Amino acid sequence: MRIGVCWYPEQWPETDWADDVARMADLGLQVVRIGEFAWARMEPQRDRWDLGWMDRAVQAIADAGMRVVIGTPTATPPVWLMRERPDVRIVGTDGRPRPWGSRRHTCPTSPAYREESARVTAVLADRYGDHAALDAWQIDNEPGNHDSARCWCRACQDAFRAWLADRYGDIDTLNDAWGQAFWSMTYPDFDAVELPAPTMTVHNPSLELAHRRFASRQVCEGLAVQRDVLAERSPGVPTFTNLYMGDLDIDARAVHRLNGIGAIDSYPHGVAGPDEVAFNLDLARGSALQPGQGVEALGGRAWVVEQQPGPVNWTGDNPAVPPGQVGEWIADAARQGIDTLLVFRWRMARAGQEQHHAALLTHDRREAPAYEEVRAAVASLPRDAAPRERATAAVVADYTDAWILDIIPQTHGASHRTLAVAAHRALRDAGHVVDVVGDDADLTRYDIVALPAFHRVTDARSVTVQAALDAGVTVVVGPRSLVRDDEAVWVDTATPAGLSERLGARVDRAGSPGGWPRDTAPSAVRTADGAVHDAGPWLEAYEVLAGDVEVLARAEGGPLHGLPVVVRRGSLVAMGASSAAAWQSVLERLR
Amino acid sequence: MRIGVCWYPEQWPETDWADDVARMADLGLQVVRIGEFAWARMEPQRDRWDLGWMDRAVQAIADAGMRVVIGTPTATPPVWLMRERPDVRIVGTDGRPRPWGSRRHTCPTSPAYREESARVTAVLADRYGDHAALDAWQIDNEPGNHDSARCWCRACQDAFRAWLADRYGDIDTLNDAWGQAFWSMTYPDFDAVELPAPTMTVHNPSLELAHRRFASRQVCEGLAVQRDVLAERSPGVPTFTNLYMGDLDIDARAVHRLNGIGAIDSYPHGVAGPDEVAFNLDLARGSALQPGQGVEALGGRAWVVEQQPGPVNWTGDNPAVPPGQVGEWIADAARQGIDTLLVFRWRMARAGQEQHHAALLTHDRREAPAYEEVRAAVASLPRDAAPRERATAAVVADYTDAWILDIIPQTHGASHRTLAVAAHRALRDAGHVVDVVGDDADLTRYDIVALPAFHRVTDARSVTVQAALDAGVTVVVGPRSLVRDDEAVWVDTATPAGLSERLGARVDRAGSPGGWPRDTAPSAVRTADGAVHDAGPWLEAYEVLAGDVEVLARAEGGPLHGLPVVVRRGSLVAMGASSAAAWQSVLERLR
Amino acid sequence: MRIGVCWYPEQWPETDWADDVARMADLGLQVVRIGEFAWARMEPQRDRWDLGWMDRAVQAIADAGMRVVIGTPTATPPVWLMRERPDVRIVGTDGRPRPWGSRRHTCPTSPAYREESARVTAVLADRYGDHAALDAWQIDNEPGNHDSARCWCRACQDAFRAWLADRYGDIDTLNDAWGQAFWSMTYPDFDAVELPAPTMTVHNPSLELAHRRFASRQVCEGLAVQRDVLAERSPGVPTFTNLYMGDLDIDARAVHRLNGIGAIDSYPHGVAGPDEVAFNLDLARGSALQPGQGVEALGGRAWVVEQQPGPVNWTGDNPAVPPGQVGEWIADAARQGIDTLLVFRWRMARAGQEQHHAALLTHDRREAPAYEEVRAAVASLPRDAAPRERATAAVVADYTDAWILDIIPQTHGASHRTLAVAAHRALRDAGHVVDVVGDDADLTRYDIVALPAFHRVTDARSVTVQAALDAGVTVVVGPRSLVRDDEAVWVDTATPAGLSERLGARVDRAGSPGGWPRDTAPSAVRTADGAVHDAGPWLEAYEVLAGDVEVLARAEGGPLHGLPVVVRRGSLVAMGASSAAAWQSVLERLR
Repeated sequence: MRIGVCWYPEQWPETDWADDVARMADLGLQVVRIGEFAWARMEPQRDRWDLGWMDRAVQAIADAGMRVVIGTPTATPPVWLMRERPDVRIVGTDGRPRPWGSRRHTCPTSPAYREESARVTAVLADRYGDHAALDAWQIDNEPGNHDSARCWCRACQDAFRAWLADRYGDIDTLNDAWGQAFWSMTYPDFDAVELPAPTMTVHNPSLELAHRRFASRQVCEGLAVQRDVLAERSPGVPTFTNLYMGDLDIDARAVHRLNGIGAIDSYPHGVAGPDEVAFNLDLARGSALQPGQGVEALGGRAWVVEQQPGPVNWTGDNPAVPPGQVGEWIADAARQGIDTLLVFRWRMARAGQEQHHAALLTHDRREAPAYEEVRAAVASLPRDAAPRERATAAVVADYTDAWILDIIPQTHGASHRTLAVAAHRALRDAGHVVDVVGDDADLTRYDIVALPAFHRVTDARSVTVQAALDAGVTVVVGPRSLVRDDEAVWVDTATPAGLSERLGARVDRAGSPGGWPRDTAPSAVRTADGAVHDAGPWLEAYEVLAGDVEVLARAEGGPLHGLPVVVRRGSLVAMGASSAAAWQSVLERLR
Repeated sequence: MRIGVCWYPEQWPETDWADDVARMADLGLQVVRIGEFAWARMEPQRDRWDLGWMDRAVQAIADAGMRVVIGTPTATPPVWLMRERPDVRIVGTDGRPRPWGSRRHTCPTSPAYREESARVTAVLADRYGDHAALDAWQIDNEPGNHDSARCWCRACQDAFRAWLADRYGDIDTLNDAWGQAFWSMTYPDFDAVELPAPTMTVHNPSLELAHRRFASRQVCEGLAVQRDVLAERSPGVPTFTNLYMGDLDIDARAVHRLNGIGAIDSYPHGVAGPDEVAFNLDLARGSALQPGQGVEALGGRAWVVEQQPGPVNWTGDNPAVPPGQVGEWIADAARQGIDTLLVFRWRMARAGQEQHHAALLTHDRREAPAYEEVRAAVASLPRDAAPRERATAAVVADYTDAWILDIIPQTHGASHRTLAVAAHRALRDAGHVVDVVGDDADLTRYDIVALPAFHRVTDARSVTVQAALDAGVTVVVGPRSLVRDDEAVWVDTATPAGLSERLGARVDRAGSPGGWPRDTAPSAVRTADGAVHDAGPWLEAYEVLAGDVEVLARAEGGPLHGLPVVVRRGSLVAMGASSAAAWQSVLERLR
Repeated sequence: MRIGVCWYPEQWPETDWADDVARMADLGLQVVRIGEFAWARMEPQRDRWDLGWMDRAVQAIADAGMRVVIGTPTATPPVWLMRERPDVRIVGTDGRPRPWGSRRHTCPTSPAYREESARVTAVLADRYGDHAALDAWQIDNEPGNHDSARCWCRACQDAFRAWLADRYGDIDTLNDAWGQAFWSMTYPDFDAVELPAPTMTVHNPSLELAHRRFASRQVCEGLAVQRDVLAERSPGVPTFTNLYMGDLDIDARAVHRLNGIGAIDSYPHGVAGPDEVAFNLDLARGSALQPGQGVEALGGRAWVVEQQPGPVNWTGDNPAVPPGQVGEWIADAARQGIDTLLVFRWRMARAGQEQHHAALLTHDRREAPAYEEVRAAVASLPRDAAPRERATAAVVADYTDAWILDIIPQTHGASHRTLAVAAHRALRDAGHVVDVVGDDADLTRYDIVALPAFHRVTDARSVTVQAALDAGVTVVVGPRSLVRDDEAVWVDTATPAGLSERLGARVDRAGSPGGWPRDTAPSAVRTADGAVHDAGPWLEAYEVLAGDVEVLARAEGGPLHGLPVVVRRGSLVAMGASSAAAWQSVLERLR
């Protein structure tokens, strides 16, 4: 794994640069990212380019023997640009443009924004596209962050209608697919479809899902505009877009497939704990795969573009970080197959919003607590990514499934991500090397496959899962799986749909294991050996339909007391509980 | 008690209907409600009526020997109508129309909305008004739900001013009645009165109270428009409007008196627990009484129009429902004198917002968990409402009182509803059959009457209460009682106003029993036998003025330690605590 | 200490007044405040003055031998004025005027508002300015309360840009001072600076700080307009402006220096507990000092203009007040050097927003629980302020520092106020008489000076602190001190900046002592004697750089385990923990 750092020369006196670069090289860093927030410095007025400082910064990095990543600065269009082209602005659900200030104040759909993005990208590509030290281009920065994926402007409204017309052909097809007969929501024509803004109560989840799909695609289209400029003007140089680790507003696989690199910003303090960090790294590692590819095909194509180096400034409490922690995070990333990791950032910012964010140097140019931990990490890691052990297990994690559960959650805390992290944790604890893959991966290559919140039923999914079962793979269908169609409409067959017959059981009751009134104890899970585990935030009970079905666990206490909640028939297991502990107890049993 | 179900044939293939109706009949169901969300299906474009499907659905129900209830679809005007007549839309406190989508996106005052409501009602009345199987009309659906009772549109603003001018005559009368001298709020004329939208801090509670009264009345006027159409075109057929069980935005008695039927939708998971469910059923049972009528006059005039049949989809956590629970809820309704109960709904919705809402059939047409519980209930219940035992106790519950405490709560959790439920629970536990009545009921017929949060002082109320006392009824005046006038202005006499002299005591300190700083222990209640009980969220201490007053309980600990909090003189008891436990201890003592 | 009361004759029948005034005099009250919310009564239409009632009220007070304070009624412009001059209105962050109703619905910057304020003040000054019983003028009432200090109207936008142009001269200076290179926020000109409204994520804290400064100054300018009118038309009569005790939106020292009287409204239930009450009283006592003045210079210049007399109506839960509590609050105020204290209010309001607010008389004119406690206080207190003991300790508390920590808090609960209260509490517990002073006070006169969250570094501060150290004063630099410059930009030297060398140590890690994941135990503090204390909401660890530095405490457990968190070198102590317990343990050690 290569280790590098994010550097903001435009924020510091140029007299500091030589020392900065020398210390980076001394630490053993190999890659330096620059530029991604510097539009106003690059182009202080329209077409008045000021890139001499950047030339010198790039050259300084190169002269020190390091590689450079240049970020396109499209997350922060300057105020002069917003003033000249106000249609660049993102618009809120109330129809009003969001005020300029901070960052990501742009509409992903706006033709003006895409045009300006292409223009600045072209200038940078022409100037640095063939620099010998250029390692990669970063396109934009954390699109989707700060709730910026969805916009309610006129351009988005029009584009949404056009996208719907293209997807459904005629309005009756849409009405049928979404079940608009419910609550008299039938649309007379596509022009009647409004972007979903808050109304009296919730919208049809099918509309919300379409909006998520549309918004994610708009972001991808905008990124593709930049990628195409770079492909033409800086051919052969890798590109990527870094996404915020926990972000579910955009289909990360769609973004990463644009470039062939899975790239995330890894801030452990932004997620619940180490289990979710590990999940996200495995998710990132596999996220640039094309359909049907195996993870090994990636070969050095997973980056952590920003690595937390100490306390951050944006999580509310922002806990301190104990000595050694940063080194462990870096080692974990290497173990999980990350190819390149950049620490964010070189020196703590004196001004602006992130003054409390840790870095490798302090505000006063001291070596920060993580400094020597990074040196040690550089020294101990192999320069080239070690060949990874073959993964023996896979967790399927899908963004569209996650969107549906976010749109219509039914209970607190039972999100797709939460359920997937629990399964991932249990498989790792059972000794597996785990791939996190999409629903179009080849599942036949694993010993065991977990399908937590594998929510939608499609023909392709059925083929994929049946192929795995036919190949002898143990398939664990998790809770909230195979219940809705691709438009978020519930199936009209027994669930898990398409597997119920093979399973010899079907879901009978499902939901929060809690009781009513609210102080009633919830249902837990008792396994065959008598151990009792927390059920997690979601629990499903099965009706057993065949004689050879083995009940591995039953609900204990609470409203579902005594009902079967984990059942097995052959190599197919249905897992109705959602905690890591429940998954662990089942995996134990499957040994 | 008759048992039936809510059916949405417009959401399903017509090929399913025969089986649906046959299974309903086989279950023993007697009544089927249809139509209340189907406007877009009935009238896909203006004046292009498509009612053939509905003709066939009504006939199918009739042919199976069941009765039909038709709901007017005015909770869900279709998008084409909103487009043609945008003044139908409800407007938020920011002066902007709430976006179309979901339901109840209409202004209760809008002349256009009332006109369109009358139009669709007339068409339905003409077509089905004399159908032999027609059992009743449902007018609208849950008006007030989703915070739809109040609207800030121009029509509402004008109507509010006109209503005020009518109520107060001249602006000085209003200024005096509301005490507008406070904070220089004096109005120069009625045009200066704005609908209360959020401002720097709170509005005068008298303004807010007037707004609640106005808004509730506007809703009733709109419902009366439909009722009048039905009375003319479908004479003799009962009508009702179902209100959401916990809803306090509308004066439910005013709504139900329009029709002579108390009709609620009963979703236990939407309220705090079984005590509140029981309270709401008794409240519904008596809510269509005309002034001075006794509850027995109702004779089969209380409906549960929608009964929860398993987990719902809208309470946040949405707990699972244990086996047997639905049957118990139905049996409780019967025991509490409900005449007709419809389970909501027949089959789980595959599309739209309520996919997780339980039903009698599952998405895949299986019999849902509650199916056999309903069959058992039908079989075990008498077909006709059993003559109820005479009620020995009454709780007076008043919507205007509840509004005032909601507007100016003073402390958390001490709402009129909470205090009334505590009193109701205690009376039931003491073995009473309890009526929940309005303040214009005849209280002389009961052994004991509880007046929890009987907040306002009026001449009529004085007459009613003194009459009960004179008749030998034990009257327990609860906390927060008899303190404000009809305009929410505090009285200038000792409280409980009008009873203090008879009581020989007056309220001396009142409020949250909590201490300061916030981790200080609150006051509890110690009864004469030494038992200590939680005081509930509100506590009042009395100053004893006469020698023959008996102190039944004193505050224990906390800021009011040692002060009398329950006192009795003759058959008049003043109850300063607000928990069910405190009420119970007092009722024990009164035996 | 003089004791008085706030009276609202305009809200009561004039027939009550004689009894009111007689009872006030009988209680021994000396001062009565009137008028501050009575604009609509004084001037029911423009230039139609109705002041006869006020003449009679003033005279009644005078005739009873009491002094009168008249408040200008500019917190409540009547509706007729808002209608005539809509540019008086305050505007929200969404650019929309806040609706009229309640109070403080005015823009502090509005020329129309200032003009109208001067007009009403002149009329009152001309009429009562030389009345023999006139004791003082109150200018406005709690400016800043209800989030009224900041307004987003056009006048504020223009004035903000002009203020910035005046402060910074040219836009490049501003860009450099605020570090606008961060996130490409560089402004091309002053017209590009918008008032900070909510955007995608947070604004630059330097912009927010400038906005706080500007807003506070606008309020002061408006108050000065009134003060100037009074100085001209009622010469020699003291003036003050009462600020809400806990309010940090306005620089209270700047307000009180306008008048030379520190004046607060003291509502203990609005703050966390008794420690904060005591802090606020000491803060008020010193808040009218001019730079370099000592607190003894104030001599009878600190007022509690409104004293809580029982439960209030605006804190959410509004706990009951135990017998004796009000008397203790009054005695505490006297002990802490308050000159005049007015109880708010004479009689509980029957109408309007504050009906539940306690008073000396109840709604029904009974003597309220606090009545006799006030009589006892009057009787027991010396009529003239006792000469206070010399203060031996000072806590420096600064509004600009507080603003910065509010703008960019980094963690919950570690505000400037919280940290300052902890230090103040510990000094009082150690037996000190404590002054709370600004950063321009002379610190050489104390034995010990505490600098909690003494956040900014300026040349003047360095001089002040070094002078104290050179004078042999023990200086305890608290957490979050000396880290940012006057524009909220972090320093580029070791911290505590300017003292690190003298201390022989520098801050190495700082932040929330909590761990990650969130259920990890936080760091506590272990002092040299082995005792372990809660660290408070913020903790800093030091790197020791010199051999003669004494480590007084280390972190115990949590992420900073074992690191030094309190260090001393000579008379300079650096205190990295933020709880009162940690401060106490250190003060113990310093004895």
